[in-house]
Amino acid sequence: MLAPAEFDHLRVVLVRTRNPLNIGAAARIMSNFGFLRLRVVNPYEVAFREARSAVGASALLASAEEFKSVAEAVADCALVVGTTAAGRRELQQPLRRLEEGARLVRKQLSSSRVALLFGSEKIGLSNEDLSHCHWLMRIPTREKHPSVNLGQAVAICLYELARDSKAPRRSRKPESKSATAGDVERITGMLLDALRVSGYLKPRPAAPTKEKVRRLVRRLNLSADDAKLWLGMLRQILWKLRSGNEPPN
Amino acid sequence: MLAPAEFDHLRVVLVRTRNPLNIGAAARIMSNFGFLRLRVVNPYEVAFREARSAVGASALLASAEEFKSVAEAVADCALVVGTTAAGRRELQQPLRRLEEGARLVRKQLSSSRVALLFGSEKIGLSNEDLSHCHWLMRIPTREKHPSVNLGQAVAICLYELARDSKAPRRSRKPESKSATAGDVERITGMLLDALRVSGYLKPRPAAPTKEKVRRLVRRLNLSADDAKLWLGMLRQILWKLRSGNEPPN
Repeated sequence: MLAPAEFDHLRVVLVRTRNPLNIGAAARIMSNFGFLRLRVVNPYEVAFREARSAVGASALLASAEEFKSVAEAVADCALVVGTTAAGRRELQQPLRRLEEGARLVRKQLSSSRVALLFGSEKIGLSNEDLSHCHWLMRIPTREKHPSVNLGQAVAICLYELARDSKAPRRSRKPESKSATAGDVERITGMLLDALRVSGYLKPRPAAPTKEKVRRLVRRLNLSADDAKLWLGMLRQILWKLRSGNEPPN
Repeated sequence: MLAPAEFDHLRVVLVRTRNPLNIGAAARIMSNFGFLRLRVVNPYEVAFREARSAVGASALLASAEEFKSVAEAVADCALVVGTTAAGRRELQQPLRRLEEGARLVRKQLSSSRVALLFGSEKIGLSNEDLSHCHWLMRIPTREKHPSVNLGQAVAICLYELARDSKAPRRSRKPESKSATAGDVERITGMLLDALRVSGYLKPRPAAPTKEKVRRLVRRLNLSADDAKLWLGMLRQILWKLRSGNEPPN
């Protein structure tokens, strides 16, 4: 898990973005994960204005820093990483899969600033942009359709950076307690009775049949709470099967 | 890495989506990663039409299947997983972090269909929607800003499913095939009927009661074979409850 200072070391750099929705989407997912430092390089002016003035535009967007060149936008960063679909051209830099690249970025974030560059919607990062990068990173898509939407690319990259591979797998609810063998056997007995009364089983089922039902009930792996519920339901069903009368109130 | 057949087992299910851009974004990232089966439940009609007719709309979108209810959309799936920001309410199902959840989904995809549900932009999945799910999954965001844009949420979940985890986990013994959601829902319906006829539930139980029973049945995690057994047993019990007669021989 990244420490707060490490989140603070990342600079997401959007280069020549044209669509205000994409700037907004990038800002939103940054906030979701806690990366709060956005930089823009020569955004399409209207797009940037629109994104900033959109309803619900965040403080993050309001405090975004604007630069005239990639060189200026990455000047204070120790590592500069470009993202690319890598479909179209010869690349001059090492290209890493996102998972491997993110690991290196995380390592660097512990001590210094890292710039993560995303190019424009149409053509991505130019060769000039890429020449500022130490290496490149790609999202592992199909070769047939490699070009990922900008907002989604930012989302996936930040998720991979933020996700905690060593996080304890804790579900919010504590694991429920298992039913006792006694309750499970009571459920089995009631179910057998209900099956006999309803004619599903013969009045005196053979041992293998009973064992089959017993195993069936055990395969449910009931929790203690659920076992109580099933006991209550079966009791009532069985009562009704036997009486044929209206149930008590 | 998932095999082609495993990609083909996933159903991305968008429930009551309102924004055509989000339907388009979901379709696009599905194609990026190679998940090609999209289902929509009661989309805002205009949105679905617009998304389908958008420039560059894919074959994937054209072949999306439309359903009137979550129950129908997931009927042929053996595992139904809901996504949630989990910020707003008490959840009744186990909640797993994306990483852990994706591992379980991948495992299931090797043998049967899995439905991955995404709710509407404003309110996500309703309690009724959630009651069709075996368990829920969340993207590990900051608590302060948990709500992820729909198109980005789909992107992150599919990335996590598709990415090539270093340690492919092979189960040692072949998993028994899980019951389809359709069979599980039929069991739920029969159980509800039996509980009404026997007086355990009121003739017209409230929605939360029905959802409680629906969740109870999903927690059984029935195999396909066991589901058939339970269907047969419940059918007979219900027949007897209703007739009060001797069963046929």
